[in-house]
Amino acid sequence: MSGLLGRVIGELALDSASERVGDGVHVIDLSDRWCLQDGRLNGGYQLSVALRALAAEVPLPDPVVASASYLRPAMPGPARVLTSVVRAGRRLATGTARLVQGGPDGAERDVLRLEATFADLAASPAETVDLTAPRDLPPFAECRTFGGEDAPPDIASVGRRMRYGVAEMPGWTRGTPSGDPRAEFWFAFADGSDATLLDLAFVVDGAAPVVLELGRGSSTVQLTVHLREHPAPGPLACRTVTQHLSHGLHEEDVEVWDARGVLVAQSRQLALLL
Amino acid sequence: MSGLLGRVIGELALDSASERVGDGVHVIDLSDRWCLQDGRLNGGYQLSVALRALAAEVPLPDPVVASASYLRPAMPGPARVLTSVVRAGRRLATGTARLVQGGPDGAERDVLRLEATFADLAASPAETVDLTAPRDLPPFAECRTFGGEDAPPDIASVGRRMRYGVAEMPGWTRGTPSGDPRAEFWFAFADGSDATLLDLAFVVDGAAPVVLELGRGSSTVQLTVHLREHPAPGPLACRTVTQHLSHGLHEEDVEVWDARGVLVAQSRQLALLL
Repeated sequence: MSGLLGRVIGELALDSASERVGDGVHVIDLSDRWCLQDGRLNGGYQLSVALRALAAEVPLPDPVVASASYLRPAMPGPARVLTSVVRAGRRLATGTARLVQGGPDGAERDVLRLEATFADLAASPAETVDLTAPRDLPPFAECRTFGGEDAPPDIASVGRRMRYGVAEMPGWTRGTPSGDPRAEFWFAFADGSDATLLDLAFVVDGAAPVVLELGRGSSTVQLTVHLREHPAPGPLACRTVTQHLSHGLHEEDVEVWDARGVLVAQSRQLALLL
Repeated sequence: MSGLLGRVIGELALDSASERVGDGVHVIDLSDRWCLQDGRLNGGYQLSVALRALAAEVPLPDPVVASASYLRPAMPGPARVLTSVVRAGRRLATGTARLVQGGPDGAERDVLRLEATFADLAASPAETVDLTAPRDLPPFAECRTFGGEDAPPDIASVGRRMRYGVAEMPGWTRGTPSGDPRAEFWFAFADGSDATLLDLAFVVDGAAPVVLELGRGSSTVQLTVHLREHPAPGPLACRTVTQHLSHGLHEEDVEVWDARGVLVAQSRQLALLL
């Protein structure tokens, strides 16, 4: 929703905003509105928190690649983000962030480690060559939508934060996994806010893993996302695919296009089959 | 080349081996046999050095994902690798490594930062589901080969370390870029040694960037590689594709299969167009 007063600040941005309390050190009360069914926080929300804190420290505006290792479950409640700028060049700047939280014994430990490189996208002409495969997804207005306020009462809280649009409901949601770990869907924040470049780091880990179509669940080990362009207002078209499972691990690739059809993000994660 | 005495230790393993001199600290004299045309060291060789040092510190044997930021050029000569294990669990263990080298003013600075997660592949059944697209590559024996000792005298030293097999020579090598940034080729070390799991982190950044088919050169900013299986002896089938260029940046994906046709590695890098 863009109005005369500019972009509405979305609830992801609000819930991901930390307070800088010292040299590169940020504090935050992690929100319980981005939880999975088991009470742990969604990985995309954790990444959003760490990347936003780092963005406040790095002298270039646009994260172009962010790479995160998920080390331990993150839970709602107090946490800190410890950031460090490791190189600040003219075209690129790189920094790291650790999301740390007290464990059962009270001692602080890393839950997520992030490294990200920033640029100034406006400083280089878009000059786009795009060879990504076309989507097979009806317009958002013609799709069946689910999630958001329509979600069933027992859904994880993160499921209320966004709405999906699909040509037909995924097999796994009907108890009949399709056997084909691919999906195309529209993504929109349930609060009506438009996704920003930073929000895309959440979007690529916001949906359920597509290995659910193989009857399996999974948990992210490592995720790398390339943030390629500021998205235009409107819903985002997403394509998710898993091509290889072995030794209890699988990759998942996500591509995201904005409402104009411009590729805005590409991600790949390695995840552990549950 | 596997013989009665087991695997031959390849020159990559020899030239990437560092000496542990203290708690997590390794020293190495970076070899000039893995250089690009301009005298800088190939990114895959740098990654190989850092990952091997880290592998010596982490309590699980097999790197399954390695993610590296390339911060400054690395040159032949003395360097150090500073490693740290950040989490050692039962199934997964994660560590970081910094490849540091003296700059023009003599002060040591980061040239590469690596984070990698290790597992024990043998501890989980292979149980493979593979949906990767079939290759369109003739058998190695029917391919035209180049590189290795046959390489022209003015080639970069890294080009002598490996041989490629192709159905036909890439357009860019003949001065006529094809306009299609895709390639399929066989990879083999020129010394006849077989690639190990660790070597795959070199293989995915060992070849020339496929954007040369668009008449452009490039330099790696960040590379993430998933190491999925120990390769069988023999040459490796590789597929490289770039799908999106914009704002002076592009991604490059590489898939690697061993001689049995088993997927052994998947990588994606973000690179700066030159």
